[in-house]
Amino acid sequence: MNEIDAALPEALLARFAAIVGDANALRAPDMMAPYLHEPRDLYTGQTALVLRPGSVEEVSAILRLANETGTAIVPQGGNTGLVGAQSPRFKREVLVNLSRLDRIRDVDPVGRTLTVEAGVVLKRAQEAADDAGLLFPLSLGSEGSCQIGGNLSSNAGGTGVLAYGNARELCLGVEAVLASGEVIHGLRRLKKDNRGYDLRHLFIGGEGTLGIITAAVLKLFPKPAGREVAYVGLASPAAALDLLKLAERQAGQQLTAFELIPRIGLDFTLRHTQGARDPLESQHPWYVLMEVSSGRSQEEAAATLEDVLTAAFEAEIVADAAIAQSLAQAENFWMMREEMSWAQKPEGGSIKHDVAVPVARVPDFIAAADAAVLDAIPGARIVAFGHLGDGNIHYNISQPVGADADAFLARWHEMNDLVHGIVAEMDGTFSAEHGIGQLKRDELARTKAGAEIELMRRLKTAFDPNNILNPGKLVQV
Amino acid sequence: MNEIDAALPEALLARFAAIVGDANALRAPDMMAPYLHEPRDLYTGQTALVLRPGSVEEVSAILRLANETGTAIVPQGGNTGLVGAQSPRFKREVLVNLSRLDRIRDVDPVGRTLTVEAGVVLKRAQEAADDAGLLFPLSLGSEGSCQIGGNLSSNAGGTGVLAYGNARELCLGVEAVLASGEVIHGLRRLKKDNRGYDLRHLFIGGEGTLGIITAAVLKLFPKPAGREVAYVGLASPAAALDLLKLAERQAGQQLTAFELIPRIGLDFTLRHTQGARDPLESQHPWYVLMEVSSGRSQEEAAATLEDVLTAAFEAEIVADAAIAQSLAQAENFWMMREEMSWAQKPEGGSIKHDVAVPVARVPDFIAAADAAVLDAIPGARIVAFGHLGDGNIHYNISQPVGADADAFLARWHEMNDLVHGIVAEMDGTFSAEHGIGQLKRDELARTKAGAEIELMRRLKTAFDPNNILNPGKLVQV
Repeated sequence: MNEIDAALPEALLARFAAIVGDANALRAPDMMAPYLHEPRDLYTGQTALVLRPGSVEEVSAILRLANETGTAIVPQGGNTGLVGAQSPRFKREVLVNLSRLDRIRDVDPVGRTLTVEAGVVLKRAQEAADDAGLLFPLSLGSEGSCQIGGNLSSNAGGTGVLAYGNARELCLGVEAVLASGEVIHGLRRLKKDNRGYDLRHLFIGGEGTLGIITAAVLKLFPKPAGREVAYVGLASPAAALDLLKLAERQAGQQLTAFELIPRIGLDFTLRHTQGARDPLESQHPWYVLMEVSSGRSQEEAAATLEDVLTAAFEAEIVADAAIAQSLAQAENFWMMREEMSWAQKPEGGSIKHDVAVPVARVPDFIAAADAAVLDAIPGARIVAFGHLGDGNIHYNISQPVGADADAFLARWHEMNDLVHGIVAEMDGTFSAEHGIGQLKRDELARTKAGAEIELMRRLKTAFDPNNILNPGKLVQV
Repeated sequence: MNEIDAALPEALLARFAAIVGDANALRAPDMMAPYLHEPRDLYTGQTALVLRPGSVEEVSAILRLANETGTAIVPQGGNTGLVGAQSPRFKREVLVNLSRLDRIRDVDPVGRTLTVEAGVVLKRAQEAADDAGLLFPLSLGSEGSCQIGGNLSSNAGGTGVLAYGNARELCLGVEAVLASGEVIHGLRRLKKDNRGYDLRHLFIGGEGTLGIITAAVLKLFPKPAGREVAYVGLASPAAALDLLKLAERQAGQQLTAFELIPRIGLDFTLRHTQGARDPLESQHPWYVLMEVSSGRSQEEAAATLEDVLTAAFEAEIVADAAIAQSLAQAENFWMMREEMSWAQKPEGGSIKHDVAVPVARVPDFIAAADAAVLDAIPGARIVAFGHLGDGNIHYNISQPVGADADAFLARWHEMNDLVHGIVAEMDGTFSAEHGIGQLKRDELARTKAGAEIELMRRLKTAFDPNNILNPGKLVQV
């Protein structure tokens, strides 16, 4: 047995279990398995104990005991994170899953806020807003299983960022439990509150290393009266950027999504995703999935979208376009976009990137990265897709046809260095929306300015002097 | 001489002066006076030295020397702050005014960002955005003299928050100098960047206690193609709330301002502000200044506003309304709103509050506060106006006619306790947009939960171990 990963003493495990009760203290491997496998299969979590607290008081008691005994705690929501932040690295770490904190505490239709606990699944939060005649615009592929606590802890992005911002921008206040077990009662329903340092923005995006978010006040928005979606074929990322500029000029704030899709990504989706259909009769090297919303009417959304497309055809920016003719078709367009990442899996090994550059640089970035990657791995199949409106591209590389998956995946870091080097030259980021977790911790430490990393370490120590909260994730102290 | 406020040794003053050069190291009382008087006349700053650095390097050198010698530094922008954060409390403190850092470093019309130095006056930032065909929506009464550095350090609010958010939400990245003199190069032009803790949101709203912001990347927005403004007369804050709900339902995201105004506030403005004219022929107890914007056209903005008003008349929510018939008239409506605070000055002493409650509670708050204040000070003239759409009311109390101003102002804290007590019962804030500074520091320490104040102190110490950055403001360590 590795000494550094000696399992926790039985007596201590029993004390933790007593806080939540035996039914919610999982010890059997088959019971713990769903909490230990993460979607990318990059990490297999280790633990001897999964706790499922049912109240903020229980979370507080767990952290108090952990802090007293120096026990590492790994908080987890829907276990959909893509950087291993939710995976315990050692058997001596206790996993605390927040799923049972799933109450919707309050809906305020006038102040347009929704107060939910951390374990509420994103989709349920969306539905609660919808029931109140309002919109919670956070939207991502895993919305059926990811949870609000994880969305906030990772500052999730997704397809609604262009118009509504990241998870960070959608949260007015949080309730969080500190390493000491003390509870920060920050569930403010106020749009303005300048009482001191904004602690909320440290817990958001903190990946559970500064405190455990147990509830949050979310911002709601007027529900659009109309939405229209178009699938547009065009020649290049540069043409897509021209279309973005035109659409922003003509539609202004009505432009609510602008996603870039390469033909190969559509091909993979058509091949591997049930219900996928080619939206256009002709084939094009690149596509844009564009959404326009109107606060006034469906007709207005339709008119705006048509205006944009007409102008784009006249300017010879787009080659072909299909406007969704029904809600079902609009949902189909979106489903194909959401499944694009998973459609790469059956094609073999895939090396992922979650980068962003200033929007105007996206075409240059793709050209430079393509050249470098194909030079290093001839035949690599590059699926560069995502949130062009935010400058955020999921620059994913599928292995060459017939190549050995393991040999290909062994070049993960080499490809990261290549792609991230180009991103850095363009003042971009190697983690646009997925976070740092385990996957990018060392890269962050290596690339961030010394003064910033040092400040981050001091922050971590100020909040969590015994380093019990998700240790070794995001920043090593 | 008060020992605790012994002036700094001449040799040290000379070392500071040498960093910026004699022309920018002010020592003469008449030269320093404009930096030491603040708009509310609540504080008279003390200092022996005003430094006007001309570069980030000079700011860095100043802080390095200050940190080595334990010298307190008070950063200052346009000196328009309302809580004394920009006023040196002791003669031994050195004032560092950022006005000379006034370069516009970059405009990116595609990524819609504006990169400016801290000393750029807000109005100039608005104009630079306008020149690029875009909008920088931060807008407040002092925009002709306040500076971006101060706007961010205080997380300024203003009249555009309803649609665009506070200063915090309008900033993508900051460059800041730490107490050590190290520079954080955080001028990111990215809409998404999840590389670790969000230090930006600590400098923003930090009132210069964690670092000095020297430059920032600001978010720009599509410029509305049309804007329409109406001045609406109605019976009560409850009617104004009904109008807000109706306008949000009908106009959605097109509703870009919603300001509440009491008749007495309009009376004061008509009496004391040049160019003010009563917008309506009839008189009403309350008014709303409402703005609707359209990304598409002036016609659409006009149609939306008319739809809202028609429905409001039908529902008998409003009594009368005037739509601005020209740009000049719209500007006049807005000017009268912006001058409302200053129009109280000639009416004698005025006790100010900057509170927010959940939007739906605003009518209850005004009713409860009015009853309590008039019970305590019969004849007090209450001017409760402001950003109803954000739940943020400037609940200002002018002295009774003929009362003694000093005797009235002596009851400042008593009135604060009364009003803030009601606010606290409604889960509101006693500092919605002006910040803490000197004015509300002790109240913050008294009212905030112990765990939060303790975290704030630990943060301050982590960032500024020698407590040289604006000491004694916001939080006492």
